[in-house]
Amino acid sequence: MKIAIAQLNPIIGDIENNAQNIYKAAHIAVERKAELLLTPELSLCGYPPKDLLLNDSFVDSLWIELEELAKKIPKNLAILVGTVIKNSHAYLHGEKPLFNSIVLIENQAIKQIFHKRLLPTYDVFDEDRYFEPGKESNFFQLSSHVPHVKPIKIGVTVCEDLWNDEEFWGKRNYEDNPIQDLVKHGVNLVVNLSASPYSIGKQKTREAMLKYSAERYNIPIIYTNQVGGNDDLIFDGNSFAVSKDAEITLRAKGFQTAIEVVEYEQNSQDLEISYIANSLETEEEEIWSALVLGLKDYAYKCGFSKAILGLSGGIDSSLVAAIAAEALGKENVLGILMPSPYSSSHSITDAEALVNNLGISSHTLAIRDVMKAYDVLLEPLFKGTEFGVAEENLQSRIRGNLLMAIANKFGHLLLSTGNKSEMAVGYCTLYGDMNGGLAVISDVPKTRVFSLCKWLNRHEEVIPHNVLIKPPSAELKPDQVDQDSLPAYDILDAILDRLIHRHQSIKEIEAAGFDYDIVCKVVKLVTRAEFKRKQAPPGLKVSDRAFGTGWRMPIASRWKLD
Amino acid sequence: MKIAIAQLNPIIGDIENNAQNIYKAAHIAVERKAELLLTPELSLCGYPPKDLLLNDSFVDSLWIELEELAKKIPKNLAILVGTVIKNSHAYLHGEKPLFNSIVLIENQAIKQIFHKRLLPTYDVFDEDRYFEPGKESNFFQLSSHVPHVKPIKIGVTVCEDLWNDEEFWGKRNYEDNPIQDLVKHGVNLVVNLSASPYSIGKQKTREAMLKYSAERYNIPIIYTNQVGGNDDLIFDGNSFAVSKDAEITLRAKGFQTAIEVVEYEQNSQDLEISYIANSLETEEEEIWSALVLGLKDYAYKCGFSKAILGLSGGIDSSLVAAIAAEALGKENVLGILMPSPYSSSHSITDAEALVNNLGISSHTLAIRDVMKAYDVLLEPLFKGTEFGVAEENLQSRIRGNLLMAIANKFGHLLLSTGNKSEMAVGYCTLYGDMNGGLAVISDVPKTRVFSLCKWLNRHEEVIPHNVLIKPPSAELKPDQVDQDSLPAYDILDAILDRLIHRHQSIKEIEAAGFDYDIVCKVVKLVTRAEFKRKQAPPGLKVSDRAFGTGWRMPIASRWKLD
Repeated sequence: MKIAIAQLNPIIGDIENNAQNIYKAAHIAVERKAELLLTPELSLCGYPPKDLLLNDSFVDSLWIELEELAKKIPKNLAILVGTVIKNSHAYLHGEKPLFNSIVLIENQAIKQIFHKRLLPTYDVFDEDRYFEPGKESNFFQLSSHVPHVKPIKIGVTVCEDLWNDEEFWGKRNYEDNPIQDLVKHGVNLVVNLSASPYSIGKQKTREAMLKYSAERYNIPIIYTNQVGGNDDLIFDGNSFAVSKDAEITLRAKGFQTAIEVVEYEQNSQDLEISYIANSLETEEEEIWSALVLGLKDYAYKCGFSKAILGLSGGIDSSLVAAIAAEALGKENVLGILMPSPYSSSHSITDAEALVNNLGISSHTLAIRDVMKAYDVLLEPLFKGTEFGVAEENLQSRIRGNLLMAIANKFGHLLLSTGNKSEMAVGYCTLYGDMNGGLAVISDVPKTRVFSLCKWLNRHEEVIPHNVLIKPPSAELKPDQVDQDSLPAYDILDAILDRLIHRHQSIKEIEAAGFDYDIVCKVVKLVTRAEFKRKQAPPGLKVSDRAFGTGWRMPIASRWKLD
Repeated sequence: MKIAIAQLNPIIGDIENNAQNIYKAAHIAVERKAELLLTPELSLCGYPPKDLLLNDSFVDSLWIELEELAKKIPKNLAILVGTVIKNSHAYLHGEKPLFNSIVLIENQAIKQIFHKRLLPTYDVFDEDRYFEPGKESNFFQLSSHVPHVKPIKIGVTVCEDLWNDEEFWGKRNYEDNPIQDLVKHGVNLVVNLSASPYSIGKQKTREAMLKYSAERYNIPIIYTNQVGGNDDLIFDGNSFAVSKDAEITLRAKGFQTAIEVVEYEQNSQDLEISYIANSLETEEEEIWSALVLGLKDYAYKCGFSKAILGLSGGIDSSLVAAIAAEALGKENVLGILMPSPYSSSHSITDAEALVNNLGISSHTLAIRDVMKAYDVLLEPLFKGTEFGVAEENLQSRIRGNLLMAIANKFGHLLLSTGNKSEMAVGYCTLYGDMNGGLAVISDVPKTRVFSLCKWLNRHEEVIPHNVLIKPPSAELKPDQVDQDSLPAYDILDAILDRLIHRHQSIKEIEAAGFDYDIVCKVVKLVTRAEFKRKQAPPGLKVSDRAFGTGWRMPIASRWKLD
């Protein structure tokens, strides 16, 4: 029996359009002789719908659209659609008002509803805010239209439901383990409908985890994931299937929509080998693909076709320009060079070389006269004070204003170009270089920015060579380099990794061989920069802990990390 | 038996200092002959500690500090301290790693631990992110040092634990009802340790609710609340006690720290009348008190003593200046007047009148020449285009830059002055007038800004009369008034109230008598302004749904509210 997976890219809240895409996928599935189609978690509204769920009319619209959709699905196709279902017992039992559910449409009617049981409420996830967990796992019986094929019992799970194998993780994440319950029900196959956001190496974890569970429970599993960028989150797709003996039998291409078909074989009661896309080879290729998709979808879903960014001749803006050119087309990217009297000559020549390499447009606006106008105006107030952060930031903010003026004038999306190391320690100017609708690489540490650029140059020079070898500098005062104020980036990034991703204390980081004073300095900088991060644009998430939805820190706090 | 409540103002994460304040309160309690002292929820770390809880070393520090504190508490005082306790079964049972707990210290030792059962995970609350709910409600027995006084059984609850009276609410919010369980245990008294943030009219709700429960269960209740501003949240204190027959027997003053004592009387098994502060008379007085405290604490806890803001002669900046003068002292507030060629003469004279009324400092910076410098620079790019949003925003951003330059130079906290109506429809400039470390009135609708100013002028003119009567204008182009682009503010605010606070659909709002096209326009503006709000500074929350921590909307979404 053939089962299709639709790796769809929904737009949050665009219910009609999402339904249309499910409908189209259903027709393709039928053409390919599939008898069941799987779509991702919340495929009807897109994941995550967030506080749209607090509007009754939103939830009502989903149900109405679902009923419409059911009538249009070909009769010979069963389909699992992700949507939200009202919890009619909520007020009586003191439960949450909604379920995160999967609806089985069969024979053009709504036949059965399955509720997600394990609700992630960590990092970027807030599912307990909206949903009541389902109390039991359930299955449905799928009868084939092909003569002499026995019906199969298919267990339905939603995303996190399969992330609780205590043997695989070495601990329980939730009390229940849905796959165990389904196996007790005697299902032949487990399907999982997911909206699992990308982070570096996550696909490896997913495959290792589901291989483990497939083998442990001697059951094949089909995993269907959402694809596409939604604000800070990038869903990578990478839907796949695993046989009973832990073999990958299907893998859709990552970072793009896809419809694939896998065969459930009657006699072996297992999945047959089908299309298997290659895994991406390097972390750099993964991150690059993720950022390109994230930028492309953010622009498209917000209604922008063109982007603008400041080009300083530095490595961060160079990388962002390259990502933008790939995501939106070189003809849709405008780079603005904004030299000041403190700018080096290579800041211009390197930016120009980049513009040439990428084939994007550019324009140069020297900010000297605007700086002077501010200086004259502020002179009575600033008389007798020394050149300092105020003057440095002002240059960055003049550039930010120019970029926003052009963006406003021509309807461009402004991209901010700060990296994660800068965002961590606050080495960036609020209302200056932090300006933008999207922070493209704000979850990419500086050392990774370098490795991405080197990877990008593997066949030919994309990022000019000089950009890669010169010492990073904000060029906001004469002869300034980043390392005047910050530890070397390899040391900084290593400390930040321990601090941010591994939740280590100063003592633990020191014990790993880092200088105590440097660690303390970094911790202090990170803590103090919270007010800047609070006002940062959404940044594309590629790590397991980004400064964004999943980073919830108090600003006015005084904890001295021990 | 005397019981003291300490309405404390902790600094998030400043464990040592918070412990010191608990210690001081304990000594005052003993002086006043109290035998038990109640402190607020999470009094040791401050509420909400947010992702600081993800650091093991933070949680460990809390326990160490608690043990130190226990040794120092006078022997004749029992005390309930709010802190976080590790859940040792978490990995085994698949539970959350922490409890939100209350620790009983008696005779200088940790005697008993109580866990919060009902964990709010709506609006600004994320407790399911960190905490496992306690499985049962518990009590302790307090023996008096006074001869012949019988011990009393005291049931312990934490904040939300008492917010689930299904008779009072007409529905269940949670499955369990801790007070019911405690009554079954035969307790004589229920205490509640809270960190309940302020919103308009909330104290009325709290008192009505606990009066209802006290009478229903025939049990006295003592409610101790945190006070003080923590980022966007303002905790109002307003701790109180209710007797069995639903009489208020104690009320601490709101919006300030307090230590009060209430007597539990042996024979009546009830609380005796003690100090009862007056409730604030008007909503305006409440909001004013909240905003003053919120600004004062944000500045203090972030290390600022002085504030700066732009004065446009309009009502929003006038109100914020008045709040700042009250919160920080008039000598610590600097107003900057930044007229452009589009500014009216009254924008200057009204601002100057305000400066005089408040006695704050001011400085005038005419932005004409800086505008010209930008115009010259952008001329080659903007040639042939019409004056529009780009040019309007540029003026606002020049002002934003000037304010940030002065703030950076002299270490002032920049206050942004936008109101909730503007923030809702995006009638504000990102990186312009939205600039600031704190958005003081971003949860106050324009109509309420007016009523607050009128209230403020009840005895003498604080806000100049002309500010109150002239039509609101951004003055970014000749003869502009807000109502060129927006519906009248009374209509706009009424629509926004239904949309934001009551989750109504377009159809429902229309059915309430509003023009369909106007409602659609407002909804569209609100949806489109999401990217601006995402980058707004923290704003002081005074409503039950503010644009901040508790407002979680997707940006790249396309739901057309029906």
